[in-house]
Amino acid sequence: MTIHKYKNEYAWDGVPVLKYKEDGTHFKNITRRVLFGGNDNLPCEIRYFEIAAGGHSTLERHEHAHAVIIVRGKGEALVDSKIITCNPFDVLEIAPLVWHQFRANKNETFGFFCIVNINRDKPTRPTTANIAAIAGNPEIASFIRT
Amino acid sequence: MTIHKYKNEYAWDGVPVLKYKEDGTHFKNITRRVLFGGNDNLPCEIRYFEIAAGGHSTLERHEHAHAVIIVRGKGEALVDSKIITCNPFDVLEIAPLVWHQFRANKNETFGFFCIVNINRDKPTRPTTANIAAIAGNPEIASFIRT
Repeated sequence: MTIHKYKNEYAWDGVPVLKYKEDGTHFKNITRRVLFGGNDNLPCEIRYFEIAAGGHSTLERHEHAHAVIIVRGKGEALVDSKIITCNPFDVLEIAPLVWHQFRANKNETFGFFCIVNINRDKPTRPTTANIAAIAGNPEIASFIRT
Repeated sequence: MTIHKYKNEYAWDGVPVLKYKEDGTHFKNITRRVLFGGNDNLPCEIRYFEIAAGGHSTLERHEHAHAVIIVRGKGEALVDSKIITCNPFDVLEIAPLVWHQFRANKNETFGFFCIVNINRDKPTRPTTANIAAIAGNPEIASFIRT
């Protein structure tokens, strides 16, 4: 039995704060915590991602799906061709091969649980042609950070 | 893309309140909501269970595992041979074949997310011999509801 007691400010006993990804300039002000690593009996991983004010995740897509539950603050998400306002306890399913990116609001820390298959493909970032297609919608063009 | 916007009081757009189980006298004052049903790309189900003051889940065990994140109020859980005080955002892993039961405190609604494999075995309830063994510990004997 593993228990991670919640401490405060979205920190848990025994759960280190990790880099979101090893390196890159395609994300900003975002951290990752693994609350449940998954195993054969429950083959999914539960992560808590936190984006500081003004930050964002990578604009990417992949064949695996995400289930996301917002838990801290407010933010916005590009999911496919929609920009979604995110509030605590909203639940989003991000289907396979859909472009997505999360952003914190300017003055607010934004955090969410993200549940994902332990067996999954690597995300891909948009090519120049992909970006041109995604940015065909002016609202989305001003939203995305690449 | 499926979005379930959070309404208030732990209710979500498009998510009906379901019976915890079809019938039985081995649980009390507990409801179930399915926030994510799972599929091949993410083979787990995310449920929100809510236990009204004084209620409890079934004392049971199974081969599949649970990952539980407390989100509303306070309660207690028997997990294996320990009684655990549960507060919001505590994370519990319930390993295979471990006896477990959740209880709300007397004056408080207690709610938690429970993530589970979409492919899973049916829970089993304790036999008289199991109960005698579980209740060997007096603290646990007074905790369990069968």
